[in-house]
Amino acid sequence: MVRVDCAGLQRYSAALFEGVGVPATDAATVAESLVEADLRGVASHGTTRIGIYVERLQAGVVNPRPKVSVVRETPTTVLLDGDNGLGAAIGVRAMDEAIRRATAYGTAWVSVRNSNHFGAAAFYVQRAIAARCVGLALTNAPPTMALWGGRTPFLGTNPFAMGVPAGSERSIIVDMATSVAARGKIILAAKKGEAIPPGLAVDVEGRPTTNAQAALDGAVLPFAAHKGYGIALLIEILSGILAGATVAPHVGNLYDNPTGVQNLGHGFGAVRVEALAPYDEFAARMDALIREVRESPRGLGVGRIYLPGEIEFELADRNRLEGVPLAPPTVKELRELGARLGIEWPFGQ
Amino acid sequence: MVRVDCAGLQRYSAALFEGVGVPATDAATVAESLVEADLRGVASHGTTRIGIYVERLQAGVVNPRPKVSVVRETPTTVLLDGDNGLGAAIGVRAMDEAIRRATAYGTAWVSVRNSNHFGAAAFYVQRAIAARCVGLALTNAPPTMALWGGRTPFLGTNPFAMGVPAGSERSIIVDMATSVAARGKIILAAKKGEAIPPGLAVDVEGRPTTNAQAALDGAVLPFAAHKGYGIALLIEILSGILAGATVAPHVGNLYDNPTGVQNLGHGFGAVRVEALAPYDEFAARMDALIREVRESPRGLGVGRIYLPGEIEFELADRNRLEGVPLAPPTVKELRELGARLGIEWPFGQ
Repeated sequence: MVRVDCAGLQRYSAALFEGVGVPATDAATVAESLVEADLRGVASHGTTRIGIYVERLQAGVVNPRPKVSVVRETPTTVLLDGDNGLGAAIGVRAMDEAIRRATAYGTAWVSVRNSNHFGAAAFYVQRAIAARCVGLALTNAPPTMALWGGRTPFLGTNPFAMGVPAGSERSIIVDMATSVAARGKIILAAKKGEAIPPGLAVDVEGRPTTNAQAALDGAVLPFAAHKGYGIALLIEILSGILAGATVAPHVGNLYDNPTGVQNLGHGFGAVRVEALAPYDEFAARMDALIREVRESPRGLGVGRIYLPGEIEFELADRNRLEGVPLAPPTVKELRELGARLGIEWPFGQ
Repeated sequence: MVRVDCAGLQRYSAALFEGVGVPATDAATVAESLVEADLRGVASHGTTRIGIYVERLQAGVVNPRPKVSVVRETPTTVLLDGDNGLGAAIGVRAMDEAIRRATAYGTAWVSVRNSNHFGAAAFYVQRAIAARCVGLALTNAPPTMALWGGRTPFLGTNPFAMGVPAGSERSIIVDMATSVAARGKIILAAKKGEAIPPGLAVDVEGRPTTNAQAALDGAVLPFAAHKGYGIALLIEILSGILAGATVAPHVGNLYDNPTGVQNLGHGFGAVRVEALAPYDEFAARMDALIREVRESPRGLGVGRIYLPGEIEFELADRNRLEGVPLAPPTVKELRELGARLGIEWPFGQ
């Protein structure tokens, strides 16, 4: 791992997006979303994505200067058309709209269509938390998961994040894909010729498999069997169907589909805490719950019980001080990208 | 199984509640919630609960004539105090309040405290569906589940349901507990001296166990490991913490705690479909998704791919025609209860 300065990586990443025609504000937002993911230890949604984002912008498949517009609205709901812009820029606009309306009316929901990969969902709910709201962010995604009883990729790994503010304790952030395991881990196992644990995937016939290559030819599974299938399908509805976006299994892949517009759908929800309880009382209740979880009797060999999001907060603290950890292939890719766009890598050799 | 007429069971069940001082409207609502669960094949949340409901009403631990009141409100949020009434009566009041406000403003959220066991969550979201809303219902519950890394019961099985209307197809209803498996199944295995599948529970030391009795002495597990833990904790927050109700692990058990008020918390959300899309367009998109799921390639040996809620709809159709199936011990309990309250069992021997 190479460690680089966080602010420097943010500036460099934003410069890359500006280099392919993205306005400065949007470039900074998207860079922030990716660097934040790297900071939190979620490298899969970090600056490693800049390469494909830039490639799609340059190919004209993603619009660097979208005119995001309101298609339909009520006092507490909005349908936004993202005009095929970068997902994080549209997502922040949508989440902030939800927060603004929840602050005025108590709660709000914003649906988005014509968007693209929006990075880590936790990024958005952190904005809700800062505004003393409970926040929800979810998106559909290209098909990789089987239906319950199916054998072909149909649903995306349809992730969601929900965040809840606390008082003197840190907020709680739940952020997950609805698959048992990331497809990336199965790709890695296939490369190494290793078996995968049972329950992760089915082969082309829909049979449970521990053969990594057979799993890649088949489909990954939602977590918790029919329960995860139900949740993934709900997320598809709340993102794709409600917004009128492309719906799984018709969403094009980010990587294998260099000419196809994705038209992803997202959903953002916010509830203002103060609408339901005096904030200080709510915060005290959250703090008490968090402490009780932390001090709860641990299982044999368990060193610590973590709150959702706690590991990521601690990693981010450390990485902000010590530098953002980047894998060497990501460094190489970012440097080459900068070289092509005439932007100097600011971190020396 | 004994099959009895649905309308007759509804009247008999309502009469039992009226017999212990519940007003006719509330008695009919609670009876409807329980009979509907029996119809849908969810007997665990059906009329088998009448015995304990009545016992708690008679003991004065649940209030037969609650004055449900608004504690706090904004245009789109309400905090209701259930005054320790029956959960289903309070729940319907809360869900309908959410639907009314979502219909006026686009979306709404209602929190409830001082409530009791509210039965099957699907019951509430069916009301949202009928009003062309996406509906959400969730509740906390007495502690039975371990934290991720814990070894004692801390969280309830914290269930939720979400329902989405469709067009000519049936609506989608997802309704689940956040545990891997119902504790009832582990109790049954322990009685028979059988092992339970791995992944369901931990023993008192927090070690994974397949010994049913060791599991009962320990704690059941959330589904999908840390993912289910995160979701169950969110539901605890959205029900107990947001409403200021009793929070797990402090919630008293329904059965083992004949003198303790539960003070459960619930949450109800609604989004009006028409706020985000012309209803007919949305309904057509839902129908297309449902058909595509149904016609998707099936795994080897899979006869049919079900939509969430489809099995329950079909069971309810059949049971409405053929009679509600009741287990003999439930029949015995209901008859004895009627005999004590002077209400005649209307179904012959």
